[in-house]
Amino acid sequence: MSNVRRRPGRRPGSADTRGEILTAARRVFAEKGFDKATVRGIAREAKVDPALVHHYFETKEGMFAAAMQLPITPDEVIPLLLDGPREEIGERLVRMILRVTAEPETREPMIALMRSALTNEQAAAMFREFITNALLFQVADRLGVPHLRIEAAFGQMYGVIMGRHVIKLEPLASADPEELVELVAPTIQRYFTA
Amino acid sequence: MSNVRRRPGRRPGSADTRGEILTAARRVFAEKGFDKATVRGIAREAKVDPALVHHYFETKEGMFAAAMQLPITPDEVIPLLLDGPREEIGERLVRMILRVTAEPETREPMIALMRSALTNEQAAAMFREFITNALLFQVADRLGVPHLRIEAAFGQMYGVIMGRHVIKLEPLASADPEELVELVAPTIQRYFTA
Repeated sequence: MSNVRRRPGRRPGSADTRGEILTAARRVFAEKGFDKATVRGIAREAKVDPALVHHYFETKEGMFAAAMQLPITPDEVIPLLLDGPREEIGERLVRMILRVTAEPETREPMIALMRSALTNEQAAAMFREFITNALLFQVADRLGVPHLRIEAAFGQMYGVIMGRHVIKLEPLASADPEELVELVAPTIQRYFTA
Repeated sequence: MSNVRRRPGRRPGSADTRGEILTAARRVFAEKGFDKATVRGIAREAKVDPALVHHYFETKEGMFAAAMQLPITPDEVIPLLLDGPREEIGERLVRMILRVTAEPETREPMIALMRSALTNEQAAAMFREFITNALLFQVADRLGVPHLRIEAAFGQMYGVIMGRHVIKLEPLASADPEELVELVAPTIQRYFTA
């Protein structure tokens, strides 16, 4: 077992090592997308033996699924969106997404997810199931919003984040977050209201 | 020269052969994205010799740039958007984009472009320059709309098309075009108006 230890005193089964592998996985997936990322590359990035990565996550798909639930898990997002005045949900949602995507550490896994979903059918299916059943429909159903309307809102935020951080359209890429909240929040609010 | 002819009587330099190569390039780029598409693969798809593809398009990038200007060229789109009541521009734009993306033949090159822009920095730069300077800013400047607002509108339509045709979120993927016009056109109109 000593060959998979990173430092004396850390057991392969510790939550910390698993967390470090997931951090590395998010970085490698964000950089390479799903198809080109490898268990070996993620192990190298995490400075652990590939066997240890396989021990925690049987497949690359399994590792991707675990990695994609961060940095936003539905359990965290849904209460934040629902907790507050209904007429401010657009503002809360836009501000939350801009905040989560502002820092590379939290943005990279989301971008990796979006990128994989566009180039790999299996990742697209995972993303599709995750985003609708675990997140969008949960919020929509609690608020009585039709699924099509929340998907239009998703489309708005998806496009803004891709334009801002991946395609890097200017002035969108450099726009002040509060200016974007002012511009986009009424769109989201309308989808949640009308 | 006979080895590059597809049928007797067609010269390698004819506009028709070039058009057929571009059609094949759009299909291959849409299927494989930019990185994985090859000149050889496009030549095979077009049933011509790879040397002929190189004759028309020195590089894969050159071929991509030529292919990406179809099916919507700015020269066609801009007058259609500007021709008509200003208060209906949102509706015109949404209806046009839904129409162009409804058929696989016209949708595939746009999807290929979007996909490449997410996985390849050179393609991202091409897409970025094309979409802003040749299209969005042309429309915005003629209408006196700030660039940030037209990019928010672009984000909305980008996200809707990706959600509908690539991630295939339901009910968005199967929604009636006129229902989507009704839902999304007011968003676009607001960006062009307020």
